[in-house]
Amino acid sequence: MRLALEEARKAADAGEVPIGAVVVKGEKVIVAAHNSPRTDHDPTAHAEIAAIRAAAKALGQERLEGCDLWVTLEPCAMCAGAISHARIARLYYAASDPKGGAVEHGAKVFDHSQCLHAPEVYSGMGEDEAADMLRGFFRERR
Amino acid sequence: MRLALEEARKAADAGEVPIGAVVVKGEKVIVAAHNSPRTDHDPTAHAEIAAIRAAAKALGQERLEGCDLWVTLEPCAMCAGAISHARIARLYYAASDPKGGAVEHGAKVFDHSQCLHAPEVYSGMGEDEAADMLRGFFRERR
Repeated sequence: MRLALEEARKAADAGEVPIGAVVVKGEKVIVAAHNSPRTDHDPTAHAEIAAIRAAAKALGQERLEGCDLWVTLEPCAMCAGAISHARIARLYYAASDPKGGAVEHGAKVFDHSQCLHAPEVYSGMGEDEAADMLRGFFRERR
Repeated sequence: MRLALEEARKAADAGEVPIGAVVVKGEKVIVAAHNSPRTDHDPTAHAEIAAIRAAAKALGQERLEGCDLWVTLEPCAMCAGAISHARIARLYYAASDPKGGAVEHGAKVFDHSQCLHAPEVYSGMGEDEAADMLRGFFRERR
């Protein structure tokens, strides 16, 4: 999660909402990525999507079986869906997101029969730091 | 929808699940795209995501305000989330998808307060042709 938080800081430095994500397989970091929709002109360029796409490309396969995803904020519906399609084994997220999350909030993407693969979900590690970074970012912009 | 169905056929020809999508602004087609996760080694490469990413790139902007998305199958949670993030004005889909859809089924992504933008939704046009193509594709593979 340390690495995901560093990625979130890079997003903030680039004027993007500070969210970072890392894909890990066993002990090995496959990729680290951050939120970049503004920079990339890409509404899908959330940290999780960027990390999943890059990891699948790096491994040369459509699915990330046996890989874990670490991310600094509870995934939205788009990212939860992508995590499911990618067959991520374990999802670790830092801060929960009552306003936009879709794991423990709202759409609860993993909790429906239409979701063909649900990862194990763990949350809370690094929560304070991740949430502080987001609060600081939005405070500055007000 | 004619164009989206043609894209779906291209996906089938490439050995991908036959789903096609088109982004339109007013009378102008911005992009047409099809499902390609296997070919691209990218679990996020659904037709809708491909079309949204390409349209945002083509227009040089993060959001697709005033654009409509036509797609041959009810979007999944990932794609519904992306449609919301992209601020798509109107969503038109052909066949509904009780097994994987997240608009009228399962997660119902647009129906939660965490969804900050919901498009107008219209469905059913081209339904038979889209569903026949999907059924034919899966029948051949069995």
